[in-house]
Amino acid sequence: MSGVRANRAGELFAAELAVVNLGLADFAANLRACGAPAVQVRWKPPCGGDVRLVDALDRIARQTRVDVDAANRLAAERMLQSRPQIIGVGKALDVVPGMRPDLVLHAGPPVTWERMCGPLRGAVIGGLVYEGLAKTREEAEKLAASGAITFEPCHHHDAVGPMAGVMTSRMPVWIFENATFGNRAYCTFNEGLGKVLRYGAFSDEVLAKLRWLETDLAPVMTKALAAHGPIDMRGLIAQVLQMGDEGHNRNRAGTSLLIRELAPFLVMLDEPREKIAAVLSFMNANDHFFLNLTMPASKCTVDAARGIEGSSVITTMARNGTDFGIRISGLGDRWFTGPAGIVDGLYLPGYGPEDAAPDIGDSVITETAGIGGFAMAAAPAIVKFVGGKPADAIDFTLRMYEITVAESESYRIPALDFRGTPTGIDVRKVVETGILPVINTGIAHREPGVGMVGAGLVKPPENCFKDALLAFADAIG
Amino acid sequence: MSGVRANRAGELFAAELAVVNLGLADFAANLRACGAPAVQVRWKPPCGGDVRLVDALDRIARQTRVDVDAANRLAAERMLQSRPQIIGVGKALDVVPGMRPDLVLHAGPPVTWERMCGPLRGAVIGGLVYEGLAKTREEAEKLAASGAITFEPCHHHDAVGPMAGVMTSRMPVWIFENATFGNRAYCTFNEGLGKVLRYGAFSDEVLAKLRWLETDLAPVMTKALAAHGPIDMRGLIAQVLQMGDEGHNRNRAGTSLLIRELAPFLVMLDEPREKIAAVLSFMNANDHFFLNLTMPASKCTVDAARGIEGSSVITTMARNGTDFGIRISGLGDRWFTGPAGIVDGLYLPGYGPEDAAPDIGDSVITETAGIGGFAMAAAPAIVKFVGGKPADAIDFTLRMYEITVAESESYRIPALDFRGTPTGIDVRKVVETGILPVINTGIAHREPGVGMVGAGLVKPPENCFKDALLAFADAIG
Repeated sequence: MSGVRANRAGELFAAELAVVNLGLADFAANLRACGAPAVQVRWKPPCGGDVRLVDALDRIARQTRVDVDAANRLAAERMLQSRPQIIGVGKALDVVPGMRPDLVLHAGPPVTWERMCGPLRGAVIGGLVYEGLAKTREEAEKLAASGAITFEPCHHHDAVGPMAGVMTSRMPVWIFENATFGNRAYCTFNEGLGKVLRYGAFSDEVLAKLRWLETDLAPVMTKALAAHGPIDMRGLIAQVLQMGDEGHNRNRAGTSLLIRELAPFLVMLDEPREKIAAVLSFMNANDHFFLNLTMPASKCTVDAARGIEGSSVITTMARNGTDFGIRISGLGDRWFTGPAGIVDGLYLPGYGPEDAAPDIGDSVITETAGIGGFAMAAAPAIVKFVGGKPADAIDFTLRMYEITVAESESYRIPALDFRGTPTGIDVRKVVETGILPVINTGIAHREPGVGMVGAGLVKPPENCFKDALLAFADAIG
Repeated sequence: MSGVRANRAGELFAAELAVVNLGLADFAANLRACGAPAVQVRWKPPCGGDVRLVDALDRIARQTRVDVDAANRLAAERMLQSRPQIIGVGKALDVVPGMRPDLVLHAGPPVTWERMCGPLRGAVIGGLVYEGLAKTREEAEKLAASGAITFEPCHHHDAVGPMAGVMTSRMPVWIFENATFGNRAYCTFNEGLGKVLRYGAFSDEVLAKLRWLETDLAPVMTKALAAHGPIDMRGLIAQVLQMGDEGHNRNRAGTSLLIRELAPFLVMLDEPREKIAAVLSFMNANDHFFLNLTMPASKCTVDAARGIEGSSVITTMARNGTDFGIRISGLGDRWFTGPAGIVDGLYLPGYGPEDAAPDIGDSVITETAGIGGFAMAAAPAIVKFVGGKPADAIDFTLRMYEITVAESESYRIPALDFRGTPTGIDVRKVVETGILPVINTGIAHREPGVGMVGAGLVKPPENCFKDALLAFADAIG
């Protein structure tokens, strides 16, 4: 409207006006108040008006070498067809590809010891002491800085880890297999609440728990799984979404279903009943037990969509407490990173935002696979944990349909009339709409050795999606 | 508007019109179409225009002998303050007040053998054979008709039973105590799915299951409860409402939480591991296991509100497959009954409405206590079982706030922004608004010996509420 010259305004407004308004809605409202029909178009400039990004989208749309939409449909199809199963338990050194005694895996994209955040450093210290490679914090820090230890992302070894995500060679891990495509994924056991390695704690209590996982929980779980047979995680996740879980920060139903499924087999094991009771009590006391199962289930699922030429679907999102990184199906193993954000959420008594480490962990693999924050509409009670109102949970899920390419056929949300969860994030849609993936997550203390201080929602950095889009356009344009 | 005489209509419509319209909304719509402001009042005649009932409400409102609102607040307060706990397991003969070997308890209001519906007769036959009082169906029918067996409602013995609700003296029962008020309630064990006594089946398979409940499940559960200590059902029900259960027809979360709570104790029992594994498998295979716990929990809760002078709160709703009956707090043990309705719902393959027995069972005690159908907004996935859309589940709960006197402080519904469930049905409000309590329920086959054929929603007969209101007005007016 501002382009109408003043000396012609009288003429214009004398005629019958029918206005289509883009941009500021106030213009349309004022017109309507004057009695003129005005339609407000819900529109904003694509890519926030950034011509470099608009040009990248144009180049992708105009090129004829690959059919990006078809490639994305294939990527989504492979995710939807995936059937992740728990097939067993093993020692990381024995089962995780490329694992070595001097290798420490961590959450998120690659990061050097020097750039690691407090909780990741704390978890590395704990991991090295647990492995017997160091005796004290000081020894461990010296060793970590010496170059004698290699640090690599879990994601480079078909693995995922919550929060710090530290995996060392002696640790027991869940072994997952995608029954449709045969690819595998690995994850450590959840250590429970309180002082735990994944939140950067490394006290004797933390190490004792890690040893108990190795000596008691893992052998018992190995035998129970052998007696039970593979556990269909797609079926379990489908059920928990009908029971108020979203599979990332709310896992009460999932942990419950796993316990009831395994309990009859646990009872029959040739193990001391005290040991089995301790395993059952441990699972009962920790609703996040199931998180370390939804994560490798999600990893198994999205990995089936990796490496599809011309696909702009995001197959990895992960954070190490310093950087947030993503990988794109059609761009191989290349990471696009930006600064890890600060989580907006609820804090445990005595803590506040000033105590928080930046966003950390591979658990955002759940959102990448279409659950977690993307399925929050299934879990309205989660707002008691991460903040907000139940209506927000519905809105978050609805918004995610704007940036995804498919809807799950297995994972359905009762409150949305059993609509499938939004699945397969298209980096083009993220950049074009400016809608960032919704992630709910735990909050670690910024210092090594403290632990969990809260939970909430976090925004990934925009630039990694923009950089990925530009690289994608260059690769295929 | 129809009272405006034609010869004055011109004069009237020439003036500025501002219309308040009651009754048919079309009148207001037409006025608005002509440009006249018209407000439609959402109103319908109280009591459907029945002057006898309006008069009863008037008499209640005008009398000064008792403060009905205060009495109802007290009744609701006692329900909200109730803390039902599972305190143990016993043999009906030993623990249920007034139980005798020649007594058969059943669901619903009193009913003679001659008037019993098919599934209740089937369950009586099974109960008599189980007790060793008859050897065959024919012997049992003869005995039942002979007058040598007494039939009484579970509700006359502080007990409740799902569907046919048959309880005989040898049967093991859950023992509940209201930790706030000390009153107790009893319920049989849930027998699982398939052919079961509660749906009127009485084959050898059904009787074998009843014996297993007595010889294996009950002793194991007795020991596990002794080791665990009392189980707080109020806390468990509060949780399951955050996990997609409503406590009547959806009990998957409840059964899961009970298993995870008891499993560590079950493992430690000095019993053969095969027996414990069988108990855990049985619970895992049957999500209705928890129904036989929400029912006595609800019975414990509403019984605390019985016998309050001047209270028009409904403290019992129950059906025997022939009659639907209610009792009112201020009217003692008097039943008001009407014909049991036919359930509108989803049928198992091969069955249809022509196979259905009328509405049966004490499980509507859950609705009486403010869960079940009243909490359907917490359980949108239940529509897959009882029919309808998730939005209906929300609507059902919202409508129940119109006929209740309080909102639960413990039982909260995430989808309604954690609003407490509608609790304490006021018979005055039911009759005045014409809104009947929402009940979701299973459907039994009309013939003895068949079993479950579906599940759905059922309307209670209006007349029992009207009769209760009239009696209430007579009693206090």
